[in-house]
Amino acid sequence: MSHEVLEFDVVSASLTEKAKTDGAELIWDRQQAMKAKCGFGDKGLCCRICAMGPCRISPVEGKGAQRGLCGATADVIVSRNFARMVAAGTSAHSDHAREIATVMHMSNKDGNYKVKDVGKLLNLAKEWGVETEGRENDDIAHEVAEIALNEFGKPFGTQRFITRAPEPRQKLWKEKNFEPRAIDREVVTLMHSTHIGCTGDADSMLEMSMRTSLADGWGGSMIGTELSDIMFGTPTARGTEANLGVIEENMVNILLHGHNPSFSEMVVLAAEEPEMIAMAKEVGADGINLVGMCCTGNEVTMRHGVKIAGNFYQQELAVLTGAMEAVIVDVQCIFPALARLSDCYHTKFITTSPKAKITGSTYIEFSEEHALESTKTIVREAIMNYANRDRSKVLIPQAKSKALVGYSVETVIQHLDKVVNSHTDVFNTVKPLSDVIWAGVLRGAAGIVGCNNPQVKHDKSHVTIMKELIKNDVIVVTTGCAAQAAAKAGLMTMEAKELCGRGLKEVCERVGIPPVLHMGSCVDISRILDIVGRVAIERGLDNSDLPVVGVAPEWMSEKAVAIGTYVVTSGIDTYLGVTPQVLGSEHFTDMLTNTIEEKVGARFTFEEDPVVCAQLILDRMEEKRDRLGI
Amino acid sequence: MSHEVLEFDVVSASLTEKAKTDGAELIWDRQQAMKAKCGFGDKGLCCRICAMGPCRISPVEGKGAQRGLCGATADVIVSRNFARMVAAGTSAHSDHAREIATVMHMSNKDGNYKVKDVGKLLNLAKEWGVETEGRENDDIAHEVAEIALNEFGKPFGTQRFITRAPEPRQKLWKEKNFEPRAIDREVVTLMHSTHIGCTGDADSMLEMSMRTSLADGWGGSMIGTELSDIMFGTPTARGTEANLGVIEENMVNILLHGHNPSFSEMVVLAAEEPEMIAMAKEVGADGINLVGMCCTGNEVTMRHGVKIAGNFYQQELAVLTGAMEAVIVDVQCIFPALARLSDCYHTKFITTSPKAKITGSTYIEFSEEHALESTKTIVREAIMNYANRDRSKVLIPQAKSKALVGYSVETVIQHLDKVVNSHTDVFNTVKPLSDVIWAGVLRGAAGIVGCNNPQVKHDKSHVTIMKELIKNDVIVVTTGCAAQAAAKAGLMTMEAKELCGRGLKEVCERVGIPPVLHMGSCVDISRILDIVGRVAIERGLDNSDLPVVGVAPEWMSEKAVAIGTYVVTSGIDTYLGVTPQVLGSEHFTDMLTNTIEEKVGARFTFEEDPVVCAQLILDRMEEKRDRLGI
Repeated sequence: MSHEVLEFDVVSASLTEKAKTDGAELIWDRQQAMKAKCGFGDKGLCCRICAMGPCRISPVEGKGAQRGLCGATADVIVSRNFARMVAAGTSAHSDHAREIATVMHMSNKDGNYKVKDVGKLLNLAKEWGVETEGRENDDIAHEVAEIALNEFGKPFGTQRFITRAPEPRQKLWKEKNFEPRAIDREVVTLMHSTHIGCTGDADSMLEMSMRTSLADGWGGSMIGTELSDIMFGTPTARGTEANLGVIEENMVNILLHGHNPSFSEMVVLAAEEPEMIAMAKEVGADGINLVGMCCTGNEVTMRHGVKIAGNFYQQELAVLTGAMEAVIVDVQCIFPALARLSDCYHTKFITTSPKAKITGSTYIEFSEEHALESTKTIVREAIMNYANRDRSKVLIPQAKSKALVGYSVETVIQHLDKVVNSHTDVFNTVKPLSDVIWAGVLRGAAGIVGCNNPQVKHDKSHVTIMKELIKNDVIVVTTGCAAQAAAKAGLMTMEAKELCGRGLKEVCERVGIPPVLHMGSCVDISRILDIVGRVAIERGLDNSDLPVVGVAPEWMSEKAVAIGTYVVTSGIDTYLGVTPQVLGSEHFTDMLTNTIEEKVGARFTFEEDPVVCAQLILDRMEEKRDRLGI
Repeated sequence: MSHEVLEFDVVSASLTEKAKTDGAELIWDRQQAMKAKCGFGDKGLCCRICAMGPCRISPVEGKGAQRGLCGATADVIVSRNFARMVAAGTSAHSDHAREIATVMHMSNKDGNYKVKDVGKLLNLAKEWGVETEGRENDDIAHEVAEIALNEFGKPFGTQRFITRAPEPRQKLWKEKNFEPRAIDREVVTLMHSTHIGCTGDADSMLEMSMRTSLADGWGGSMIGTELSDIMFGTPTARGTEANLGVIEENMVNILLHGHNPSFSEMVVLAAEEPEMIAMAKEVGADGINLVGMCCTGNEVTMRHGVKIAGNFYQQELAVLTGAMEAVIVDVQCIFPALARLSDCYHTKFITTSPKAKITGSTYIEFSEEHALESTKTIVREAIMNYANRDRSKVLIPQAKSKALVGYSVETVIQHLDKVVNSHTDVFNTVKPLSDVIWAGVLRGAAGIVGCNNPQVKHDKSHVTIMKELIKNDVIVVTTGCAAQAAAKAGLMTMEAKELCGRGLKEVCERVGIPPVLHMGSCVDISRILDIVGRVAIERGLDNSDLPVVGVAPEWMSEKAVAIGTYVVTSGIDTYLGVTPQVLGSEHFTDMLTNTIEEKVGARFTFEEDPVVCAQLILDRMEEKRDRLGI
């Protein structure tokens, strides 16, 4: 580990100095204490699946143990560990979606949760065969929600949304037995299959993981996105700002961190209540400044323009500013370290979900039944904490960037409609996008997604790959912490067109979009599946025919493993900037990076150097274009 | 690791010599190659839950890393690893049960799968509010099966079988929010909660694990048992034999290994077909000798008296005899090592489940739709392989023991009816059992269950604890590999009463049972929950009031962790002869072995010495008796 990758970006550097003064422990202090990584675990060669072990397989053939006590080989152990990452990632996304379906099931036009996008509700009702004529919207919403809830556990049938995929892809999934059944069942069956004495075949393990991953991408994640749009509004283009500089000196600052809009939407509502704002003024602040982080940040910026304080790797830094009255979280990607860290300041670290209680935090359970009251109680805690701020400890880095966000598929299509020739073409399709790709004005499209990872210098891989691609006329769509990296780097502005090749620049100007489009949170990668599928369908092709790729330059979570797997299984090549823990099995590594293509027409590439990675992507796009003869 | 614990029992010793001659690798060869265990993993201090790591926490406070990169402490890491074991174990049992429900859903009085215990079907239909009047049995079965299938994924409500528990227990579960919802949902939610950035609180993690474990015991496992009885018959008392000596020189030997009766029942039927027996004779054998191992062995011995070749640790030895034509397996606890090992002999290693393909095996997928045909194909493979047996390589240890098996709750009650005073008492209850416990004739009852584990000398802990307990008038019920240990040790004979104290001896004589009762496979621990609950209900008490315990002397699988957790959460003290990988967290260890009692009235005890363990159990029973004033 070189010293360079331990460094934060320029914005963060000032804060790391402050941490020392304040006696605050940050992630790289822990990283230095951790010293060397376990070589077995890092290669996927450690098995803790039963209590006969733990077993460790020597990475050197003929030297040391080559099989676990049960006889599991390196291939088997690596494949099981990989499968469990897919199972956990799928669980996280899907359980999130279940919560959205649950609040939709309790929606009420007079209640806290009400249907916001009626058009999208009616479309989905139609797609799912729900009667809409002469019915109240709430009534329709409840039936749609119940169908959605049954997608998690229905005893028969496969996921409804897979029929949205291009036909050749659906056919391939059917042939390969990749069609996911109930979401929870796929997870449980995969967990079962990885249990001691079950699957002892890496190929089979990978195939089961692929099916389960589709239950994420085309199941849980897509349900999460669709139902969130119905309940909280389909995102439309809007401006925001990003980076720690959005924290304001004279405001009650509240950091919203986590994932689930069924919670964060209510916090946004609560913070907008006049009584809350009045209370903030009473305690001497100018008002309430809600700022977002990680996927919750993405959800609320996409729908409300809430400013973005940063991404995964900055969660501690937001507290370190000393100006944060509360960090309010629900689930996923929350450092338990925030409890200790907030003790160094006045900051209240408030956990709210029974699925993510954290020792040392203030736990105020969020109640969906009394959603607004519940979040008002929480916001009130933050306001009352303003008086406790120690101004001598405040240091807010001034850096922030403007960004345009809110590019749902619907919004992208609306923008594309601007360039439709109304004499020859129809509105409301992705044809203009497909046309510019076919014409070569754009060479392709890349979905750049995922986390931050201390193995990579913060945001460097994200931004480097994005810049390389847009320079080469590849349009970039992005979600998650990658999107926040782009926003901070100024790539989500109209001005960023100047960093683009001629083709992309022209597209940006004519369509009126930045070259890097914020499509939302990690579950919203389903939006990317959707738009890619639409282009393929429009051309009568499969996803795997198109010059499009997925990239996760700085991934770290099991969700990312599930995502990568469903993206590849959906026929889209995926580039990982952090090598997954599979190198202990040559065979499994070869499957992921090579032979999987025979099965699904796409493969993984592991490349840690972002410049090289970008070049590999560009080469692959040209290869795909050649095959298409365009 | 002392040399002693590496040794097999006397029966096995001759075979281990043979392994050297034959160049066959066995588990202790692999154990010796493995050398020292990873100290971090062994204490539960290794976290591989995201790709920032792997992280390892130093077990010494103040020395080395005390927190993972995200800030997860030893408590958090240990608790997450524990929770994932519960999730995986629950998945294994429940996915097994789902398969039984699936074949019940396709039951047909003229088909391969037909309802065998109509009385039990009608009882369950009544319990679940299914109309039975004027309906065909198949029709009722299909509706009951569909309800069962929905227990895995229903969006609303909790597990149906929890209402079978004593009322105070139900009340406690409700208060603590321990009532399990849909089985698969509990697993997924637990997997989600263990994901990076979710639960960072060991107490909360344990509580969620407890709820999930109940979805196993009172959900998946109980559904598995109930539906298996309906479909394949409720076990009744019958004789069998156990140990490698049941393999026969002049027969086509087939080892049935794995777990699921929906498969093994069909193999039993296939092997009984006259055409199959005729074919065996044609190839020069005297017939077909089906022998069982692990839980599949238990399932088929409980219902058909199929002989037991041995338990988990003997799976390789059965092949090593050189007289095994085929090892036929479905799911769970199957060494992938059997592929390599069977290559040293003529043995065909046949895998049949898509959930447990094993590299190097012959894969013949079992089809429920053509169940009998499918298993006949597999049995035929074994028969045709008889000619390939190399007689110079055959060595069958002659040891075997007689055993009485088949003690379902119904069969136990039938036996108890023998001692009912028909003038003063009613038949068909557990009152006689409760009476002898209250009278002090029996001091208590122990459920001894679980696997083999190379950390313990094969079967030694099982048998030692059983002998100690029966000597002290504690009746033993047993399932899984523990039951097979008892059978091999001769503890399931009427003669074993001579090893008992006076009270238990008299009970054995009067009721006509051995002192150690075979209650079935690991999912059949639900039978133990059932009978304990009946005694508590009969006395108007809770499970935790009774002098009963669970013991897993040689456990190794994640299923065992789920079992132990649901047994404790059901109010029954549980003794583990292998220490689980939790010692890295003093707090978590203290919760399991101490403070959990405040929550559920029962706790874990870790004790590796079987004699000491038995004494602790006896002491605890006397303590419970004192509290009851009996």
